Amino acid sequence: MLDPESWASGWRGGNIAIALLANTIATGAALIALILTFGPISGAHFNPAVTLADASQGGTEWRDVPGYLAAQFAGAFAGVSAAHLMFGEPLLSPSHHARTGGGQLFSEFVATFGLLAVIWGCARLRSSAVPFAVGAYITSAYWFTASTSFANPAVTLARASTNTFSGIRLMDAPGFVVMQLIGAAAATALFRWFHRKVAS
Amino acid sequence: MLDPESWASGWRGGNIAIALLANTIATGAALIALILTFGPISGAHFNPAVTLADASQGGTEWRDVPGYLAAQFAGAFAGVSAAHLMFGEPLLSPSHHARTGGGQLFSEFVATFGLLAVIWGCARLRSSAVPFAVGAYITSAYWFTASTSFANPAVTLARASTNTFSGIRLMDAPGFVVMQLIGAAAATALFRWFHRKVAS
Amino acid sequence: MLDPESWASGWRGGNIAIALLANTIATGAALIALILTFGPISGAHFNPAVTLADASQGGTEWRDVPGYLAAQFAGAFAGVSAAHLMFGEPLLSPSHHARTGGGQLFSEFVATFGLLAVIWGCARLRSSAVPFAVGAYITSAYWFTASTSFANPAVTLARASTNTFSGIRLMDAPGFVVMQLIGAAAATALFRWFHRKVAS
Amino acid sequence: MLDPESWASGWRGGNIAIALLANTIATGAALIALILTFGPISGAHFNPAVTLADASQGGTEWRDVPGYLAAQFAGAFAGVSAAHLMFGEPLLSPSHHARTGGGQLFSEFVATFGLLAVIWGCARLRSSAVPFAVGAYITSAYWFTASTSFANPAVTLARASTNTFSGIRLMDAPGFVVMQLIGAAAATALFRWFHRKVAS
Repeated sequence: MLDPESWASGWRGGNIAIALLANTIATGAALIALILTFGPISGAHFNPAVTLADASQGGTEWRDVPGYLAAQFAGAFAGVSAAHLMFGEPLLSPSHHARTGGGQLFSEFVATFGLLAVIWGCARLRSSAVPFAVGAYITSAYWFTASTSFANPAVTLARASTNTFSGIRLMDAPGFVVMQLIGAAAATALFRWFHRKVAS
Repeated sequence: MLDPESWASGWRGGNIAIALLANTIATGAALIALILTFGPISGAHFNPAVTLADASQGGTEWRDVPGYLAAQFAGAFAGVSAAHLMFGEPLLSPSHHARTGGGQLFSEFVATFGLLAVIWGCARLRSSAVPFAVGAYITSAYWFTASTSFANPAVTLARASTNTFSGIRLMDAPGFVVMQLIGAAAATALFRWFHRKVAS
Repeated sequence: MLDPESWASGWRGGNIAIALLANTIATGAALIALILTFGPISGAHFNPAVTLADASQGGTEWRDVPGYLAAQFAGAFAGVSAAHLMFGEPLLSPSHHARTGGGQLFSEFVATFGLLAVIWGCARLRSSAVPFAVGAYITSAYWFTASTSFANPAVTLARASTNTFSGIRLMDAPGFVVMQLIGAAAATALFRWFHRKVAS
Repeated sequence: MLDPESWASGWRGGNIAIALLANTIATGAALIALILTFGPISGAHFNPAVTLADASQGGTEWRDVPGYLAAQFAGAFAGVSAAHLMFGEPLLSPSHHARTGGGQLFSEFVATFGLLAVIWGCARLRSSAVPFAVGAYITSAYWFTASTSFANPAVTLARASTNTFSGIRLMDAPGFVVMQLIGAAAATALFRWFHRKVAS
């Protein structure tokens, strides 16, 4: 959905596009490395929406869910702080980046629906491909959504505490999180039906 | 076939190249994720040319073909609408992007010939590599063809309903589709011969 | 070895870099798709240096070598012609792109040495990884050599017949080919020694 | 952590970003190819921090460590010299590129901690994924650290002898190396604990 005709109106559009491109490649590559690394240890969720969806289908046990969620939120904030420390910024600072409107909210529904679809689609028969599928998905979803695919409630909240391009105003975060959870639930229900159809 | 000498005549060429680069990486990555996800459920065709070629060789059963084609066209239009909705544009709008001429038509023949070659070449002995082979192929074909490799009749028709850079005028679509089907048929015949040679 | 300090002297350097980046990603991705596709049929050499090196170690039979070489040169010229046809240029036209000097020649030695090292290193124990290793290697070698890593005598000769950025003057081609063959021979000898050491 | 808002202030930021992007893709791709190639022969460490961490856990034997380290430093300097030779620069020349400060040092801790985490996380159960995990990790770490992730003492010292963008002043190298070794030790201790927890 990139439109070079409008981007071509100055170097500014080009520069933003390069920054987004670097972000998407770095994010996708990091996810591949992280899921390969932590998959055998914890399942490599990193994402409350994934943990909740997995628990709802009898994967993660409910008694483990609070610990997973706590670790996910703590990890997200620790990551923001570490990045700020490396780049010489204050550890945490409130974001002023407005991310609102129907297009953005629908984007988060689409992004998280797709993420859970990829996970449910691969987890049963191609579990060794999950790291590559998720990394590729997020690289792509960054571009085909209008919100750059947060798709993760822990990440959303943590990004409310960075006043950089990647941030989101705290007041915009709840809408994102709600749409993420609805998207995750919808994909979970759909793939439950798919797997029953395929099994029967 | 990129020529930096001509691109270097201003920032405009550079900006268009960045947009194309982001599009190719996003498209290739999305295909990897989608084929990994839906391969075990439906075969992950997404493409009438693939379904018809597969049916012609006794893969997909002919009675399933109409359903596959209907789902492929419906999915393509749903995707265009969802993207328009996310980016705040009208759900569907006719494209004015002219894509015509012998170079473009030959490109669609080459693009779809190559796509089916990759699928037929990998499907038998390296079926687990198909998602990566197809994703890599489309990332590449975007650049080595003059048409940016539509290579899919459902995608071609759906892109006639987006008035963005990625669109194609409805009047140019039939030529693309015909060349795609000829390319698919040629690759199917060639690889049928290859596989007989190798088997004997 | 990219130096943003010098590139930063204008948009021209940036535009050339984007073109090179797109070329490397497209080339690497195409190699992955092509080797996955044709590996099970012919071994997917595409490259006289690979065929000759393989024959020297008892892989490809010598009586098959002339046919392989003929197909490789014919395929390279067919590819140039098809690209020219898609982009509306004359089928073949002599290149005026000078590529000469010690740095360029040493680069072709390094590039082909590395290519054969990757092939010999992966072919025995990780043959299913060869497509990805070769694709990744060429994507990378484009940047770490001064010649953009032709690393293939058939490709070198065919690129003498395209008067675009990717071309090479016919008079510069023999030097490239000689260095490619020396590089291939050196890597073949080294890895023969490695494999004996490892086996013993 | 890329901030298009500041990059957008001129073409210079964009050009630097393109150079970094090309470097990261080339580096990650080269690592995939190199680890696939040399993994079965030597383990494909290339990195004194990896060899020392592996020896500390009973992997590499201590009597082999001096040879590994000598080969790693020799290889790093040979690589710098070969690159200089290809690009027509003096074989070795002292770097004047200052890389200092707390953010840079913390970055090297984070970068090497993460690299060893990826290696320890994948090496046991997913050893065939190590080349892709490491390549993806370094591609990513280039961007999420402030130091562009040297993460390798041999590379650090060798880069003190190149007066290009990628160099580092000799006086800044010891700090980098110390932080790399601390990061490697911390990840090794953490994953030893993880693996005991998982095994029990």
